[in-house]
Amino acid sequence: MELIKLFKDKKIGDEVVVEGWIRSHRPQKEFGFIDFSDGTCFKHLQIVYDKDLVNFSEVTHFLLGCAIEVKGELVASSGKQKIELKAKEIKLLGDCPSTYPLQAKGRPTREFLREVAYLRPRTNLFGAVFRVRSIAAYAIHKYFGEKGFVYFHAPLITSSDCEGAGEMFQVTTLDLEKVAQSGKVDYSKDFFNKFTALTVSGQLEAETFALAYRNVYTFGPTFRAENSNTKTHASEFWMIEPEMAFCDLEGDMDIMEDMLKYVVTYVLENASDEIDFFDSFVEKGLKEKLNRLVKSKFVRITHEEVIRILKEANVKWEFEPEYGEDIQKEHEKYITEYFDGPVFIMNWPKDIKAFYMKQNSDNLTVAAVDLEVPGAGELMGGSQREEDYDKLVSRMEELGMEKDSMEWYLNLRKFGGCVHSGFGMGFERLLIYLTGVENIRDVIPYPRTPGNCEY
Amino acid sequence: MELIKLFKDKKIGDEVVVEGWIRSHRPQKEFGFIDFSDGTCFKHLQIVYDKDLVNFSEVTHFLLGCAIEVKGELVASSGKQKIELKAKEIKLLGDCPSTYPLQAKGRPTREFLREVAYLRPRTNLFGAVFRVRSIAAYAIHKYFGEKGFVYFHAPLITSSDCEGAGEMFQVTTLDLEKVAQSGKVDYSKDFFNKFTALTVSGQLEAETFALAYRNVYTFGPTFRAENSNTKTHASEFWMIEPEMAFCDLEGDMDIMEDMLKYVVTYVLENASDEIDFFDSFVEKGLKEKLNRLVKSKFVRITHEEVIRILKEANVKWEFEPEYGEDIQKEHEKYITEYFDGPVFIMNWPKDIKAFYMKQNSDNLTVAAVDLEVPGAGELMGGSQREEDYDKLVSRMEELGMEKDSMEWYLNLRKFGGCVHSGFGMGFERLLIYLTGVENIRDVIPYPRTPGNCEY
Repeated sequence: MELIKLFKDKKIGDEVVVEGWIRSHRPQKEFGFIDFSDGTCFKHLQIVYDKDLVNFSEVTHFLLGCAIEVKGELVASSGKQKIELKAKEIKLLGDCPSTYPLQAKGRPTREFLREVAYLRPRTNLFGAVFRVRSIAAYAIHKYFGEKGFVYFHAPLITSSDCEGAGEMFQVTTLDLEKVAQSGKVDYSKDFFNKFTALTVSGQLEAETFALAYRNVYTFGPTFRAENSNTKTHASEFWMIEPEMAFCDLEGDMDIMEDMLKYVVTYVLENASDEIDFFDSFVEKGLKEKLNRLVKSKFVRITHEEVIRILKEANVKWEFEPEYGEDIQKEHEKYITEYFDGPVFIMNWPKDIKAFYMKQNSDNLTVAAVDLEVPGAGELMGGSQREEDYDKLVSRMEELGMEKDSMEWYLNLRKFGGCVHSGFGMGFERLLIYLTGVENIRDVIPYPRTPGNCEY
Repeated sequence: MELIKLFKDKKIGDEVVVEGWIRSHRPQKEFGFIDFSDGTCFKHLQIVYDKDLVNFSEVTHFLLGCAIEVKGELVASSGKQKIELKAKEIKLLGDCPSTYPLQAKGRPTREFLREVAYLRPRTNLFGAVFRVRSIAAYAIHKYFGEKGFVYFHAPLITSSDCEGAGEMFQVTTLDLEKVAQSGKVDYSKDFFNKFTALTVSGQLEAETFALAYRNVYTFGPTFRAENSNTKTHASEFWMIEPEMAFCDLEGDMDIMEDMLKYVVTYVLENASDEIDFFDSFVEKGLKEKLNRLVKSKFVRITHEEVIRILKEANVKWEFEPEYGEDIQKEHEKYITEYFDGPVFIMNWPKDIKAFYMKQNSDNLTVAAVDLEVPGAGELMGGSQREEDYDKLVSRMEELGMEKDSMEWYLNLRKFGGCVHSGFGMGFERLLIYLTGVENIRDVIPYPRTPGNCEY
């Protein structure tokens, strides 16, 4: 049976059969202790055995990593768990040699574990990280599902480029060797008969669904072929992109705040062992940080006010804050500390934001919002979308964007267009916040970064 | 407010404000009727208005597709819904011209609607299809979430090829024009410094997680660059791939059956309006078909027995059934009719199945299973995985497979390997079954097929 069920349903005196892996083993002359886990929960089970086992001598040689089946009786324990398993039979299901890379001695570093990414979910740290990944993903689906949002699967291979910029991965079935030999690229021979690439965002397509269903969200992979090797960039990552019709920037922020609090609460309640572990071994104060977030009221303030506060601050900035310009990490940090909590920064200078954002009547700013969270920086970004056809067209023209392939997007403004808004959250950014693990490579099962595509 | 809430919470006499779109409009001299929807549920709301409206004359000119806000009082109706909305104010939020492609007259064909895929979720049919897509996806997450399965995000860009075959899409940042000019392909200049492609399956990577968490599943996009234009092939589609450690073929089938029944039940309960619609207008008897599935006991039978039954049948086959060979659509159909219900066909000839499947002791078959469902054909396929290192290696060698890049996969058999099983279900195949819509292009928001990659 599964450990998660055992801990929930079984009591001292019960006979059980469990299957799982040896996480550590202390064999003695007359008896032995096995730290045992089957991965179904964070908790391990201690197994005790003695010479009554018919294969006692064999069992004493079972190494860390072995898969075993244990039949026995649950007995009281003085250890961390209140129960342990007194083994009557221990059977080897899958052997493991002493060359197994995950040895208890000489605790492997995170860098080393990235090299054996296929084994790292077996460790306490990564076991907890990827379980929290799963639980947080479930919380997101639950939040939107219960609110009646339609889950929209955005296309991954695309012929449109959302941000009008963005370095994209090309997708092709052309034989590159033949391209090299023939000396020309003939897209009429390519699978889709044209240039196609991996999407950088499902937002534009999500808007088409919001104007049919009112409330929709995406939750899927997106891609950036950005050649940057930082702790926060991956080439393949998962995004959540909700999109709501008849919803302005205020309504957008309401959902951003509500969703974030829901997901954090859900993780606190459903991954409490994991959160305690991160709190003890990864980021001291993590649990308190998450609990505070859930209770806090998010501040809403304009970009202009933020710049004023920054300019008035008695701080020597590395980058001087300026009206009409972007803000830097040091500014983000200051602002969340200034308000001692999460801050929505609204109405950004239009020149540093995307073409589809609603232009404010001042002609200088757009109805965009970034959410700054203490200890996380920018966790989400959103905006009201420009619903005015003429304004959208003239903005695209200003930016020199190609309009023909975007006719469908523009048409949304012609065919019963209305006020609508949305936002995006990088799922891994949320996970870094939830776990305290700083590197994006450590919250993605098989991370893709420049030069790295194993498995 | 949202219609789904209105129908749930509001009663005759209540004052409400709703926002949504005109789905049809019959203006008369003294009054008018608007069929109104906001997309939050299948049901529409009838709006009645008369000359008391200050902008009566303007409102009579609002066309199908317009976004409007309506303030009024809920009153009793003699129509399909028990209530309708007596308007006190109707405000135009977004205009829509008479050139709007979705006109009520001359009902647009599914083929035409594919051409305007960005508008089709606004129709009754596609509105229902993509809501069921969302509800079914939620049901899948709910099923596995409640069972404690870890949701695993398989990598999309990959350097390994699961099936050892399969036509893949290459992913590259090489400038193809430069490749053509230079006359050579230099992968050291590519983003990942090697050939990479879009995954055809997340199974092999899911196995690494199953051997850490016991029970895991994937639910994400997969890709096939197969140049086939059929009703059931798309180049980009979503797959569910559960993988369970300490689970044999029998346990695998238990979960396949249980999951399918759960999802179908959930959809019947949570998309009843949509299912009724499909039953009336798309596939007569659909609801009965789904209800029967939920109540049926799935038959379990070997491939060999199936061939025997087929051979004994008094049928003139187009393809003669043969021991050791694959079965055809006509055979699948016969078998599900023969047993009058879903059939698990087990123990397939190893030569027609994948390298990773568990070799049976007869040396001829593998512990593979296909689920055949009446009216759907093959809905899922799974297998016990070969956990024996030597057998797996020799099978790969027999098939001339490259082993070096698969060392991690082979190592799973060395490091505490154990009996484990899994299966795959194409999400769109399930949706075709659930909705009665036959063409895969009509159950994917933005389908990708050879030569087609719009949006």
